[in-house]
Amino acid sequence: MLKEYFKSQMQEFRNVIYMLLGYKIDRTQNSLYKLRSMYAEQPDDQLCFQVNKEGDLNLLENEFSATLEDMINLHLRHQKSIPVFLSAITMDLFNNKTMTKTFQIE
Amino acid sequence: MLKEYFKSQMQEFRNVIYMLLGYKIDRTQNSLYKLRSMYAEQPDDQLCFQVNKEGDLNLLENEFSATLEDMINLHLRHQKSIPVFLSAITMDLFNNKTMTKTFQIE
Repeated sequence: MLKEYFKSQMQEFRNVIYMLLGYKIDRTQNSLYKLRSMYAEQPDDQLCFQVNKEGDLNLLENEFSATLEDMINLHLRHQKSIPVFLSAITMDLFNNKTMTKTFQIE
Repeated sequence: MLKEYFKSQMQEFRNVIYMLLGYKIDRTQNSLYKLRSMYAEQPDDQLCFQVNKEGDLNLLENEFSATLEDMINLHLRHQKSIPVFLSAITMDLFNNKTMTKTFQIE
């Protein structure tokens, strides 16, 4: 019963994170986190972060991250901010979706 | 023991959310969530969201939200996106901090 209660609490928290910050976050293995954006163009587009020995998070390379080279350089390498990186992606994907919609309407 | 385990799991998840998305998220009462940004100018600057009967999140007014009128109008009222709103705040606060630093160095 207690286990079910905590599981439901965790699930509720994950849903609120998704509604607030726009990312569905899953921990697939120990210290590996997968993020999928609410505004993703493809359902498979996800970003994976791994916690290293120092407790820092590192972005792992995949097909989707390879399309984000400019944002990785600016926000992760230069500004050194994962929150700014993920925020920039949210705004970018949202703007792309809205623009596509606008073109379809016109 | 199980309770402690789940508590530590929840705490770890909250820490990872903070590192990834830049917001410390606390549930203070039932269906009330308080967010503090990693880049907040004042420690008391927080945004409160309440889950309503339909399951949607509403931003509650406070002193800090009163300073964000333009972003509330654009991202919440017009674009209807909480993730875009919170992303814009993250980028804005980060840019302010960076600019202040640059001025101090010069």
